[in-house]
Amino acid sequence: MPEKKTKQEVKDEDVVYIGRKPVMSYVLAAVTQFNIGNSNKVVLKARGRAISKAVDVSEIVRNKFIQELKVDDIKIGTEEVKREDGSVSNVSSIEIYMSK
Amino acid sequence: MPEKKTKQEVKDEDVVYIGRKPVMSYVLAAVTQFNIGNSNKVVLKARGRAISKAVDVSEIVRNKFIQELKVDDIKIGTEEVKREDGSVSNVSSIEIYMSK
Repeated sequence: MPEKKTKQEVKDEDVVYIGRKPVMSYVLAAVTQFNIGNSNKVVLKARGRAISKAVDVSEIVRNKFIQELKVDDIKIGTEEVKREDGSVSNVSSIEIYMSK
Repeated sequence: MPEKKTKQEVKDEDVVYIGRKPVMSYVLAAVTQFNIGNSNKVVLKARGRAISKAVDVSEIVRNKFIQELKVDDIKIGTEEVKREDGSVSNVSSIEIYMSK
């Protein structure tokens, strides 16, 4: 996978962080980003249970809104999360790189 | 992504389907497959909410058990699922191709 290249090209404004809102909130955010943003790229980022939702968002945007969309790369990893009591736990993460 | 190549190389016995069991069940299944199987490949497949768990399994196998493991490819898609009442709904899917 072309890791370095993809990372260099992505700006902060192209990233949609997937959290606890309904799926369609993030679908709209991604579609809006493609339509009014200066870039033709969007990266979906999610951790833990939101990973499934990130895949849903990517598939809905591609199947229902922007047919010419391509998934360029998908990366998975592990991030350390600090809890309130100071302990550290690991959480899986995903990054879905899309462009049109 | 090298879709055709990857698909041809994968046999049914190399696939671990991620479902509702605890994460460590699938981690052990994947590690066992690498250690006693005839193949040096494993594919994790999951749908819906189990997608997050598939990423967990992949990361745990790679970080805790088989350090030399590589993630060769990750594919996402949409599958149609028939409910008991005959209606059809869409569910997201993931395939994580790993080899050592």
